[in-house]
Amino acid sequence: MTTRPLRADARRNVESILDAATTCLARDPDASINDIARAAGVGRVTLYGHFENRAGLVGAVVDRAMRESEASLRGVDLSGDPAAALVRLIEASWQVTLRYGALVVAAERSMPVAEMDAAHTEPRERVRRLLERGRAEHRFRTDLPVSWLLTAMHTVTHAAAASVYVGELADAEGARAIAATMLGLLTPPGAVVPDVAALRSVR
Amino acid sequence: MTTRPLRADARRNVESILDAATTCLARDPDASINDIARAAGVGRVTLYGHFENRAGLVGAVVDRAMRESEASLRGVDLSGDPAAALVRLIEASWQVTLRYGALVVAAERSMPVAEMDAAHTEPRERVRRLLERGRAEHRFRTDLPVSWLLTAMHTVTHAAAASVYVGELADAEGARAIAATMLGLLTPPGAVVPDVAALRSVR
Repeated sequence: MTTRPLRADARRNVESILDAATTCLARDPDASINDIARAAGVGRVTLYGHFENRAGLVGAVVDRAMRESEASLRGVDLSGDPAAALVRLIEASWQVTLRYGALVVAAERSMPVAEMDAAHTEPRERVRRLLERGRAEHRFRTDLPVSWLLTAMHTVTHAAAASVYVGELADAEGARAIAATMLGLLTPPGAVVPDVAALRSVR
Repeated sequence: MTTRPLRADARRNVESILDAATTCLARDPDASINDIARAAGVGRVTLYGHFENRAGLVGAVVDRAMRESEASLRGVDLSGDPAAALVRLIEASWQVTLRYGALVVAAERSMPVAEMDAAHTEPRERVRRLLERGRAEHRFRTDLPVSWLLTAMHTVTHAAAASVYVGELADAEGARAIAATMLGLLTPPGAVVPDVAALRSVR
């Protein structure tokens, strides 16, 4: 299949719409197509010319946000103690979450589960490798399927973002809450739950 | 305000619609208004006469399911060791979850967050009291807000239901996965994570 490149003005429109949608949705997950078209300075007809519906637009915004996030997460050092590496990864991921704010909430509300899953493939595989190494080194529990631990990690991370959004957790508390929760959740039965603060200085 | 009682045939229609919707949504969270009207043996016009839209109908179904669930959860013995009491509560809650199947998924997809929260007030308060007792008795962690631990519990429970729905966890594994996950998550840093099986015989 060959794809004809978009004309320059169409490309500019798409970029303006994606920028405006990112800003609008990061502030208000319920931002409407009208809000976004207005912020982008384009008409509804133009917007619908590029995106089939609101879910399609949210999907494209999340897609671009995920690509930019991937670039920063790829730099995190995941060597050494798996628990300490997990804390570093969670802290870097949290910075990404704060940058995109309520966009996470918008994505969860409007994207089909299958698309949300697809958008999370790379971060999920990164966490999976770390969890598997932690299990092999007896640092993380092996009595529950790794797929479930991944689901729990995904779920807890998004719940923390939602809790910050509604003001139940402070921005700065988010990373510590996720890290503390995940370290407890991953500790094998019979082992001692590590302290997040103590792990910050561990290599 | 006085509410005029529904006529007998209208009341029967509402009950048929709620029964049909419960069955349809417990099997397929994407069941449409048409599927439900057909299963209930009523027309769309009749259905829309009683429920404003799909979300309103899902809300009413969840409402009734929650009332029936409440009746069975109220009977769980929550005295004694808070961790063992939590395992009992999780196991009883899981039976309710299995009974209503994909209805949980349907509710999460279509109900506004505020309504979902309202529907969970009673179960949430029950868990809150148990968590607070566990914290007072140094069995559960106090370094994270109780509101966050409640959110984590709610989130993990619904993630387990969704995982069973997509076949990632077996029906029978659900309760153990939630209990093991929550016990790890709730254990204070520096303390040993308890084993679920061992707690089953504890009072």
